[in-house]
Parts: sequence; structure tokens; C-alpha cells
Amino acid sequence: MSEITNLISKRAAARTTSHFTTGPTDGAPVGFKAHPNPLPLHWGMPNNGFFPIDSIDLNLVDYPFQKSLQLTNNSLENLSLTGSSNGGQSVTPPLQPTKNLKTIRIERHTTDPDLIDIATGLQYANVEGLKPLLNFTRDFINRTHKPGYDDWETIITNGAGDGLNKAADALLDPEDVILIEEFTFTPFLQNVKNAGGIPVPVKLTIKSGSQGLDLEYLTDLLENWSTIHPDKKKPKALYTIATGQNPTGLTQTVEFRKKVYELADKYDFAIIEDDPYGYLALPPYQTPSSTIKLDTFLTVDEYLKDHLVPSYLEIDTKGRVIRIETFSKLFAPGLRLGFIVAHKEVIKAVSNYSAIVTRTSSGTSQLIVNNVIQQKFGGVDGWLQWILKMRITYAHRRDVLLNSIYKSEAYKKKFIEVIDPKAGMFVALIVNFPEGTDFLAKLKLLVWKFAEYGVGVVPGINMAVDKKFSAEHANFFRLTYAPANSDDELIEGGKRLTDAINDFFEKGLEF
Amino acid sequence: MSEITNLISKRAAARTTSHFTTGPTDGAPVGFKAHPNPLPLHWGMPNNGFFPIDSIDLNLVDYPFQKSLQLTNNSLENLSLTGSSNGGQSVTPPLQPTKNLKTIRIERHTTDPDLIDIATGLQYANVEGLKPLLNFTRDFINRTHKPGYDDWETIITNGAGDGLNKAADALLDPEDVILIEEFTFTPFLQNVKNAGGIPVPVKLTIKSGSQGLDLEYLTDLLENWSTIHPDKKKPKALYTIATGQNPTGLTQTVEFRKKVYELADKYDFAIIEDDPYGYLALPPYQTPSSTIKLDTFLTVDEYLKDHLVPSYLEIDTKGRVIRIETFSKLFAPGLRLGFIVAHKEVIKAVSNYSAIVTRTSSGTSQLIVNNVIQQKFGGVDGWLQWILKMRITYAHRRDVLLNSIYKSEAYKKKFIEVIDPKAGMFVALIVNFPEGTDFLAKLKLLVWKFAEYGVGVVPGINMAVDKKFSAEHANFFRLTYAPANSDDELIEGGKRLTDAINDFFEKGLEF
Repeated sequence: MSEITNLISKRAAARTTSHFTTGPTDGAPVGFKAHPNPLPLHWGMPNNGFFPIDSIDLNLVDYPFQKSLQLTNNSLENLSLTGSSNGGQSVTPPLQPTKNLKTIRIERHTTDPDLIDIATGLQYANVEGLKPLLNFTRDFINRTHKPGYDDWETIITNGAGDGLNKAADALLDPEDVILIEEFTFTPFLQNVKNAGGIPVPVKLTIKSGSQGLDLEYLTDLLENWSTIHPDKKKPKALYTIATGQNPTGLTQTVEFRKKVYELADKYDFAIIEDDPYGYLALPPYQTPSSTIKLDTFLTVDEYLKDHLVPSYLEIDTKGRVIRIETFSKLFAPGLRLGFIVAHKEVIKAVSNYSAIVTRTSSGTSQLIVNNVIQQKFGGVDGWLQWILKMRITYAHRRDVLLNSIYKSEAYKKKFIEVIDPKAGMFVALIVNFPEGTDFLAKLKLLVWKFAEYGVGVVPGINMAVDKKFSAEHANFFRLTYAPANSDDELIEGGKRLTDAINDFFEKGLEF
Repeated sequence: MSEITNLISKRAAARTTSHFTTGPTDGAPVGFKAHPNPLPLHWGMPNNGFFPIDSIDLNLVDYPFQKSLQLTNNSLENLSLTGSSNGGQSVTPPLQPTKNLKTIRIERHTTDPDLIDIATGLQYANVEGLKPLLNFTRDFINRTHKPGYDDWETIITNGAGDGLNKAADALLDPEDVILIEEFTFTPFLQNVKNAGGIPVPVKLTIKSGSQGLDLEYLTDLLENWSTIHPDKKKPKALYTIATGQNPTGLTQTVEFRKKVYELADKYDFAIIEDDPYGYLALPPYQTPSSTIKLDTFLTVDEYLKDHLVPSYLEIDTKGRVIRIETFSKLFAPGLRLGFIVAHKEVIKAVSNYSAIVTRTSSGTSQLIVNNVIQQKFGGVDGWLQWILKMRITYAHRRDVLLNSIYKSEAYKKKFIEVIDPKAGMFVALIVNFPEGTDFLAKLKLLVWKFAEYGVGVVPGINMAVDKKFSAEHANFFRLTYAPANSDDELIEGGKRLTDAINDFFEKGLEF
């Protein structure tokens, strides 16, 4: 048994499940011989012949925005054939998509063990997830973020939100404390509350070059816990978005993570690593051009070796880490599909919760994701090649937005700074208010200004665990380049944003 | 405010949700003018151009088992054109499917308000469900089970299991009591436990012609509650599977439901009506023939008027009823899709729970179900015509299984009885043990016998709320004709079952 078992909540550990259709397993009468081919009059599940869908054809693209991007010779269309990272020279990449289909068919029945057919995908299924997709998640993690111990498992979830709620339930009993980055994905706070847990914010350092978590603050907090929080239990977990942090866009290096993990070991807490877009590891900003540069495109091996930041899983030797993955950002959010990677005892607790509360994840989504990955992309490395195409598209978008900001009056006058993110889809825009300014009042006014100029942003303070704790360093907005419909929208969005700030500052911080 | 609001759990009533991307709504500065076309740099959602799926083609069947059934002139294939209920004479049915497509395409973008496109269906969405499908659920309930009051709503769920868990959460605080049919869908007991509720079994009368719930027992229980259960609070809800009850297959008439509703009114409790397969309203058993008889096929109006048993919703004037629907049995279980119909205050509580715990239901499933119903079947009445085809197929299966049992030695010797179900997919097989038999020991032994003969059934006792309470009348098994692959399997299943029982009885109730 791993040390993590001591951290599983009493509520989760007490759950057991069994189904009324399960037959007896012991006490067989003398002479009993099982029939080799029993017929089912017990399972209340409709035969797949009742399903109105006979097969599904998925018409797929080869790269993001295939239908709307202006293509050139150096376009993404050629990347699967000529992808290169050495300064624009084309080389044969080490990996080709095994099947470069435009349309894949999902049949009612298949005998291919890597595929999910209609008869299986649209039927009742185990809460852990359908076998081929579960196998994929394990292969994927082995290739990208191999844990530092053996007894880990994966389980399919209804996306990262569901994964986070399950992690909270698995760890937190009422009054249990969880450390959380002071600015964070606040819906998780509701999950913590639902489990009865108490969130305690940890300071972030929000500036270029920072890795997010204030390690000195965290170390001091843990060392002096009983003095600082005499009324609270010792922390049971840390929740961190370690790569492309939401909302700051900051990323922890592997060396930094090792130090945090050492603290987890020393003070015996679990780490919930939420990583919805960490695979979008971005190169540093460069002036955007109208065509995407091949020299920013990597091979899968280069990407894994030098660009993708290692997960906490990889330095985990004791099963302390619960990693929350999702297909929302790399495939589509409406799937409501993701997975958790954790010690098998944690996965067992999550599985029992799923069996009672959320039930099985959408089979429709599972069969679509699994079969697209297998039939279109040819498995793990083909899927990583898709991710590389996502990455380069996001990098371009980030460059376009930042360029629009860098060219602005507000930026040149140093009213604002931005943090160039190393991963993900968020940029922190820091507002340099004069000393002594009432941040929160001015930020609120500025949001109205943005609404008048026609651009939506998220004030950092909206994502604070504790608004009072964070009021002093909440002088930033979260921007994202994910939803825009075109480069022009990003350019215009950046312009409206910076024009509004310039106007606001020139009017002496007034509307 | 309806009386139901007093029945909502304190936990559910206390929940509120808000999202960090929500902008300020009050305190606009003087002179503020909203921009007519704001650009989004706030929502962390990927543009649909990132989705690898461009469009989906669904290849559909016109009736269940189209690919495997032997067809004749009187086949289901002709039903949409010649469906009739008057003794086999063909008449033009009042409703034709508006679009009789074999393949429907789901496009990336559509302007049809009844359809869900890829850009919407695979994107983040409201927890209540996607608009076109939500509209469908309301239209469907208006057509089939129009509630007796106005302030009702629907909300999409991840199937009936999810719906039941949400109903339990919405009503039950710790120590709250819920009445449950003594034999029931036991996974619901886990939902009750999870909410802290206390299940109290209500006696069922398990015999042909019965309607399930023992009304006299229920009335007496409520009248003398404080004497019978001095340590428990008064019941807050009744959970009932009123049509094709699981596991007994029994169905309550509308007159019966009115009496139960009167009790709910008098003793102020809510009714959770779980109805996964009630739309499969079955004609009485008739000797099966190799072709399906047209005279058992109904028009939609005939079906709604004379065959579909009214829901508790229809006699509900105060919003006491929470109806749990699912697409699992009529479309496919792997969708993990269903909906709840209830008073808007209950739906609000469920919505808040969804926002925190389960999140949005699979958009993939929502877009497939919605678009199949709209594009293939043409809306509510076309969907009901599909249900009628399901119904006639289930009726045939039920007839085949019962016929196999009726022809058996065990049946002729009166070792067993069966209850011909008026709806659904379950048959209760009652074993006539001699008086004084130790039921439970013999039933257990019999299950091993079935395993040796090669047939799976569910012992009623496996589905008891309280095994002690129900031990005296647990002399039955639940059979289902839903999963079998063919008529032959049902015939053989019935044969193995009855041969095993005959063998068991002839050996003096020994293995």
C-alpha cells in the first residue's frame, strides 16, 4: 500500500459498489459445472439491434482551420510530410500518420481491438471507460509523462471539471485543508466546498520569468503552519495548474516541481495537477508572419524531449500525484471527456464515486475520440502530431495578440506589461497603476471601459481564492487567444484593449 | 412559490453558482455605452476551427433490427406507410415521417434552429442542455404527459442514473426519509445514502393483475407513521417505477396513481417517478408468429390515447412530481443522456448541482440524439413512431419468451407463474415453493442450477431495499427479453430456465 492511501477521504474509502445482476461467486454446490455459453435473461440492456444508428462516418480535417486558413507551400498541410525543426530545411519526419484518411467509418461491429464499434460504444459500459480508450490513455501517459512508480492507473472522466470534482471527493473530508494557487480555476473551489474542504490560498509571483507559486512563501507556510493557522488541520493536498497556469499563463520548470514535490513528501500531502492545455508548449514570442514558419514545427521526439514540460507524475515515486487530463482543449470541449492518472488506490476511490454519482462517461464521445485517434491519426504518436499542429496554431495566435499589444501606445508608455506564456492559452496583462492606487475600484471601472471599447477580458480578482488575500497583487487581466475567429479579430481585440487602457490612463484613471 | 420548494433539501437550496467570466451587471459609469460587437478575449474555449471533426454522417435504420430481421410484406418496413390498428386492414396513418432519410449529415455550421451543429454541439455549453434538444424534451412531454400545472421545466441529464442521483440530492438532507418500493432499482439506494437519506421500503403485491405498490399498506404506514417509525422523520418523498416496474414488470393505472398522489398531497411528500421504459406500453401476450402482425401496430394518436399509461405528471397540480426520463432504452444506453421534468424550482436546484458536480452532459450525444430525431424522424411524432416500432419489437420478444415458458413442464406443473407485463422489458417469474420452504436458501441454490443450465436471471431478493423486510415474498426472479440476439436465444433461454426449475423441483428442491 502506498502512502497515498492515508490521504484518501474517509467518505471515499467507505464507499463500496456491487450490482444486483452480479451472480454468486462462492458456495457453489458440489458437482456444479458452469455452462460454457450462458444466455442473458438478466441484464436490462437493449440489444444493439434496437439502436437507430447503424454506422457513423466522421469527416475529418488534417489540421486546425483547414477549411478557413489561407494555404501556402509552407502551410500546415505539408507538415505531416515535410515537418522540420532545423531552420526551415525539410527533412523526412520520423513518423508518418499510419492512415491519412479524410473520412473514417465507425461500424456497428468490429473485431479490431483498438477500435470501439457502435454495438459497444452505445451500450452500457464500465465506469472506468471503454477498454481501447483506456489503453490509449495509458500508452499516451507512458509516452508523454511516465510516472516514477508502477502502481498507477487511469480512469475516463466527463472532462476536467468532473475529474477535479472526483479528485476533491477522493481526498477531502469536512475540515480538510487544500492549498490552492491564490488565482486559480475557481469552479474547483465549489468542488472543494462540496466535499467540505477548506481552501487556503498560496501566493503567486506574477511577473515575466516567474514560475507561478511563490516557493519561499509556500515553504514558510508549511514550516509554520500551526502558528499561522492554529485553527486548521495540516494541508492534505495542493491544487496546482503547473503548466500555462490559469489565469496567469505561468509555467513551473521541472526543477521547481522537484522542490514542491519534496515539500509534499516532507509534509505528507497530495498534489492535484490540473493540466488541460499543458501539451500546448509554446515557443517564445516572435513577430507573427502571414504564413506559419516550418522552423517552429517539431518532430514528436524533439517535442517530448525538449519542449513539453514534465508532469509532476514523472517525479512522483509514491503515488502522491493526481493528474487531471481532458480532451476538451485538444479535441473538443463538448465531448465532456477526459481522464485521471493516479495511484491505483485513488483510481479505485474515483471509480466507486463514479459508479454511484456520475456513472459512465458518454460512450458516444469515447468511441468518437478513440476511433479518430486510432483510425485517423494511427495512435499515440499520430495524436501527438495533431497536438503539434494545434500548438503551432496557438503559438501563431499568441504572437498575433501580443504583437497587437506590443505596438500599442499603452504598452509603449508602460501602462501595461504582458507575460509571454510558455504554454497554454492564457496571457496575463499586468496594469502598472501608480503607487497607492485603489486597484480593485480602478480595475472594475476599466472593465466597463473595455465593454465600451468592445472587448471581453477576465479580471484576475474574479479568479481569486480569497479576494482579501489577493487584493494587493490583483492588478492584472487574463486574456486568451483561443476563441477568436481570425487573426484580424485578435489584432482588433488587442487594439481595443490597449486603446481603452490608454484612454483610461490619459484621463487620470477615470472613465 | 410552489409547495415543492419546502421539500427541496437545505444543501441544494444553499447552492449558488457564478462564473468568473461573468462581467459586472450593475454600477455602470455615467455615460457608459455597450459596444454592439464585443470581441472575446475572456472565454477559455477553443474556436471550433480547432475541432478535428468537420461534419458527421449518421447512417440510420428505419426500424429496429433492419439489418438482421427477415422481412415480409407485413413487415415493419411498411409500417410507416401502411400502419393500422383496425384488424390488419391498411389505412393511411395520420402522420408520415417528414424526412425519411437513410443518412443524415451533421454540419459544422447550420442556421436551422431545430438542429445542433458541430460548432455548437462540440463546444462548451450550458448545464441545462443545448437549446434544440431542450425544446424537444418540452414538446415531447407536452405531447405525451402534459403536467397538470404550468411552472414546469426540463433539464438534460447524463441518463436516468444521473437523473436519479440529482433528484435524491435535490430532496434529501441527512436523516430525511424516502419511501421506496420494496423491490427496486437498487443503485438508487446508493444515491439516497450519498445524500444522507434513509430509505424505507413499501410493500409490493407481486401477482398477475396487481399494480405493484400495496396501497393499503402505504396508507396505513402514512397514517400511523409516528407509531411505526417513532425514531424517523416523516417521509419527504416516494420513489416509484410506476410503469413496467423494475424488477416486477407491474404497472399502476391512472386511477391508482391518483390515490397515491392524494396521499402525497395529504402527507406532503414529493414523488420521484422513474420511467425508463414506460413508453414501451405492451399489448397483452399473444402466441408469437414469425411475422409481426400489423393489427398490433398503432397510430401515434391511438397510442397516446389508449395505450400509454399517463404519468404522475398529468395529475400533478402542485409540482410534487419529479419525472426521470432517459434516452437509454429508446435510443441507446451509451449516450448517457436523459432528462428530468419537474417544477422549475426543482430544476433550478438540479441545475446548480450540475454546474458544480456533473457539469454539462455530453454535447456529442446531445447533437446526435437531437439531429436524428429532427432530421430522420421529423420531430416529436416521428420519434413516437420510432417508439411504436420499438414497442412492437419488444412485444414480439416478450411473446417469444413467455411462449417458451408457457410450453414448459415446469409451467404446466405449476412450479412457476409469470406476470405478463403491460409495459417495459421485465417479467417476474414467480416460483411456487411449497409452504414452509426456506425461500432464500433455495433461490440461491436455484441460481447455481441456472448457471449450470446456462441462463442468467436476477433473483428478486438482490433488488430488495431491505432483505429482511422482503424475505417472505422474494420468491421470484426478474427476466428480461431486451438483450437477446434472436428469437432462438429467447426460446432457448426460456427452455434452459424452465428445464432447470423442473429438474430442481423433481429432485425435491435440491441441486
